[in-house]
Amino acid sequence: MKTLLQVDFPYQGPMGKEMVSQMRALAESINEEPGMVWKIWTQNEQTAEAGGIYLFEDEASARAYLEKHSARLAAWGIGPVNGKLFAVNGPLSTINRAPL
Amino acid sequence: MKTLLQVDFPYQGPMGKEMVSQMRALAESINEEPGMVWKIWTQNEQTAEAGGIYLFEDEASARAYLEKHSARLAAWGIGPVNGKLFAVNGPLSTINRAPL
Repeated sequence: MKTLLQVDFPYQGPMGKEMVSQMRALAESINEEPGMVWKIWTQNEQTAEAGGIYLFEDEASARAYLEKHSARLAAWGIGPVNGKLFAVNGPLSTINRAPL
Repeated sequence: MKTLLQVDFPYQGPMGKEMVSQMRALAESINEEPGMVWKIWTQNEQTAEAGGIYLFEDEASARAYLEKHSARLAAWGIGPVNGKLFAVNGPLSTINRAPL
């Protein structure tokens, strides 16, 4: 069953265009992760937070990615990571034109 | 600028099909909210949480909806509501096939 992964964390680094330069290789590598369907990159300069909303093919691949990504962020000195997995309610999401 | 609204909260109520029956009218009303582009309905039976990922046309409409929705949930005895607004990093999201 498709699984939504919601991730956010404190982030002091560059956002916007500079973040694109720094993170392009990471974004390309994320396309190679097993089960990854799409990711929306999120950023908030006022609250100094960033993160992502991901859709995965199933819960196992979402959970494996969250573990890998949390370890990577920890190695960069970023945390705590707020990571949550959710099932998607399909019929209600369809009413609201969700891009699933 | 398009704004992503991320909402989750403790939820003991029915999920899946029963939630569709109970929440269909709410979902239809959400389509009438100013600036709403789409919503993905999220649910997790193991952690007893639910919520939604929304895309809005701009920050003001996302913030206004979060205030309205938080008040509605509080009136239902649901909380605390974890609600966060984010800008979207467009180029990185495009690399990861984000449905924006």
